[in-house]
Amino acid sequence: MPRKTVIIGGGPAGTGAAGGVKAVDPSAEVVLYTQFEDIAYSPCGIPYVHGGEIDSFDRLILAGKQAYVDAGIDVHYETTVKSINTAKKTIMVEGEGEVSYDSLIIGTGFAYADPGVPGTELGGLYYVKNIRAAQEWDKVIANSKRAVVVEASPLAMEMVSALAHRGIETHLVDANPYALSNMADPDIMAPVEESFRELGIHLHYNTTLEAFLGDSEGKLRAIRTSAGEIPVDLAVVATHKTPNNALAAAAGIKIGSTGGLIVDENMKTSAPDVWAAGDACEIPHGLAGTPLQGLTGSHAYAQGKAAGQNAAGGSKAYRTVFIPWGTPAGKWVIGGASFGEATATALGIPYIVGVAEGVSRSRYYSGVKKTKLKILADPKSHKILGAQMVGGGDGIKERADFLAQAIRFGMTLEDLATMDTVFAPAIGALTEPIVAAANNGLAAAKKG
Amino acid sequence: MPRKTVIIGGGPAGTGAAGGVKAVDPSAEVVLYTQFEDIAYSPCGIPYVHGGEIDSFDRLILAGKQAYVDAGIDVHYETTVKSINTAKKTIMVEGEGEVSYDSLIIGTGFAYADPGVPGTELGGLYYVKNIRAAQEWDKVIANSKRAVVVEASPLAMEMVSALAHRGIETHLVDANPYALSNMADPDIMAPVEESFRELGIHLHYNTTLEAFLGDSEGKLRAIRTSAGEIPVDLAVVATHKTPNNALAAAAGIKIGSTGGLIVDENMKTSAPDVWAAGDACEIPHGLAGTPLQGLTGSHAYAQGKAAGQNAAGGSKAYRTVFIPWGTPAGKWVIGGASFGEATATALGIPYIVGVAEGVSRSRYYSGVKKTKLKILADPKSHKILGAQMVGGGDGIKERADFLAQAIRFGMTLEDLATMDTVFAPAIGALTEPIVAAANNGLAAAKKG
Repeated sequence: MPRKTVIIGGGPAGTGAAGGVKAVDPSAEVVLYTQFEDIAYSPCGIPYVHGGEIDSFDRLILAGKQAYVDAGIDVHYETTVKSINTAKKTIMVEGEGEVSYDSLIIGTGFAYADPGVPGTELGGLYYVKNIRAAQEWDKVIANSKRAVVVEASPLAMEMVSALAHRGIETHLVDANPYALSNMADPDIMAPVEESFRELGIHLHYNTTLEAFLGDSEGKLRAIRTSAGEIPVDLAVVATHKTPNNALAAAAGIKIGSTGGLIVDENMKTSAPDVWAAGDACEIPHGLAGTPLQGLTGSHAYAQGKAAGQNAAGGSKAYRTVFIPWGTPAGKWVIGGASFGEATATALGIPYIVGVAEGVSRSRYYSGVKKTKLKILADPKSHKILGAQMVGGGDGIKERADFLAQAIRFGMTLEDLATMDTVFAPAIGALTEPIVAAANNGLAAAKKG
Repeated sequence: MPRKTVIIGGGPAGTGAAGGVKAVDPSAEVVLYTQFEDIAYSPCGIPYVHGGEIDSFDRLILAGKQAYVDAGIDVHYETTVKSINTAKKTIMVEGEGEVSYDSLIIGTGFAYADPGVPGTELGGLYYVKNIRAAQEWDKVIANSKRAVVVEASPLAMEMVSALAHRGIETHLVDANPYALSNMADPDIMAPVEESFRELGIHLHYNTTLEAFLGDSEGKLRAIRTSAGEIPVDLAVVATHKTPNNALAAAAGIKIGSTGGLIVDENMKTSAPDVWAAGDACEIPHGLAGTPLQGLTGSHAYAQGKAAGQNAAGGSKAYRTVFIPWGTPAGKWVIGGASFGEATATALGIPYIVGVAEGVSRSRYYSGVKKTKLKILADPKSHKILGAQMVGGGDGIKERADFLAQAIRFGMTLEDLATMDTVFAPAIGALTEPIVAAANNGLAAAKKG
């Protein structure tokens, strides 16, 4: 008899897990439950449809439902799982009753953090997540005149640009002194914020949201902040992600300090035969060991694949993460790996830093774009601790991927300063910014 | 008294060396001899001015002459060095007489290999190198109707596109079965050659050049090949680079199997107090150990910097190279690191290969471009041996840089298959092509 794996969640963690199971055991029975009408679409693309860079929501669908049927994955749509019983190895499914499993994979994802202020029940508060809801909200956006984005998160970077592109008076409210302050350094964000201002976006930093204010019909008319009222008819709630762990918590599965499920390197939870993946979990930072929660879809997908393989009897470790990240922001692209100066300082990790401004191609070539890149390294070993970049876009993502791997492999400033790089006028400059930053870091280290 | 370093050559090796000396010993006396009227320009940009992508030769000048004066580097322009005497520690300079040195750095560069056929004395043969000559040749190109590029080298990839852009009937002649056959694999070059054909370029492979044929005035009128005559009024001689080593050879400095000067990891030659850098040298391949000659300007510059630092009393190793490379070719960008299947086979190195076609951004995002990427790995250890890519351009250079460093650090297919990568719709797809290729390589390895 085939082993039966049950998966809860149809996002990147759940679909990655389904593929992982089938990769190890093609004959396995795989049943996946999702509360939504669709599967395998990319919610990360939603802001770009709102902004007009992607021309249709249909383009976000990665694989049709038939692809799952063909792969032998039994997807139950619009289905709610009510509880998990790890002792009996069953789950309770609304409308189906008790369902047994040999292996269970939890990929229940995230919810946006509650803004924690009055008025969240009003009409006009948009939580970017579900593609069908997004299609409805796109019509609301078309009729909006003034919008606010709450919390200067990565999603906010995308949404303020999208709203501004639509000609809407756009406000950004955040309690911190600058955008993305929990991950990016102020010098990296400075050009981004300048380009937000050029786009006409109103930036309200050091400003606390106090309430959403409604009209007589229960629709949003303004927000109240520590700096006064701002009239708006739409609010995008872009608060940080919190793990959707009510089901797992009720089943007694262990939860960590971030609220994420604790998993070992095989994505196994504290319960027998139960794995988890994606935003429902917490994962230790590769260097600092601090638990991280709310990473990106690519992490969720990779974790899902590992969880699926292990649930099917394979053995696949998911390594601790060094968090390469990147996103367009205003007219720039920002990115990095591991942490920047702000986080290193907050964690009390000593560092030296090398900064360079380089170009993506030879200076004399048309279309040349500047990239500012900084590298943090341990003052003694010179091992790379983190990196951040802001630039025109060329190669930011690939450099972030590389720098994360460099950190994982314990590369030093010396190693990066002596790396070979491509020189070809149209695609790469004589001095690669990574090499220049590493050399500047070594020079700074010498001066003490 | 300050130490005196003499540098022969004003290309990237020589200028890198001058900077290297000053970095270690700011008080050092540095005298640099160049036979040309200019210094610190980028000859690699010349094809792009011919093709119209760069609007003026003036843009290729990287630093004015005054910058060298300001840096305390005494450049002697249009000056020929006649000989080196390593016993007396002097060089003989035309018009200056005997000049002594404490340290000597040889950066005499390359010459294009002699085509070895009759007719090289004819007018109309263009060797792309000197910026002033290029300005004159640009006028010749403007009046040319039919041109041939001899040898399908990296320079040829740039020049055939430049000539075709100028509306000239363009031919490419090479004795091998496809372009760049000594470095790139045929599957990587196939789309490039298709785009050459779309540009109207006439490709003559498996075709041996037999002679340049002149008219009664001693000007080129055609070439004779193993496949017949081709009428042309311009020939770009894009043969491989050979080291300019007459001076060093006459001084008894040791030369290796490629004709390049033999240097140790500090860029020191066999002669006391004599260093060398750039195309005049040969450098061992980081994996295979085979000597390499005729690398790029960025290698020359980095070698020059190391040579300069060592010549000034510092200690800077230049590590063996893993040759990241990249260039636009037709409407594609190609690149790689270390070697591909053709070279591995020729060297008798066993390998397994993982191939993937990925995208530079999320599939649904506009402007998405395909990248084909393959990774060669050792069948037993799974350590990466080399990689090749062809794609729309995004991140090819940065991936080549990374893969070269991955090879240097002994990363395996497993290491690349488990790397974290950025997922952000506008800049990076869910599955990074490097990760997909590594996974496919592992799958292939399992099947045996």
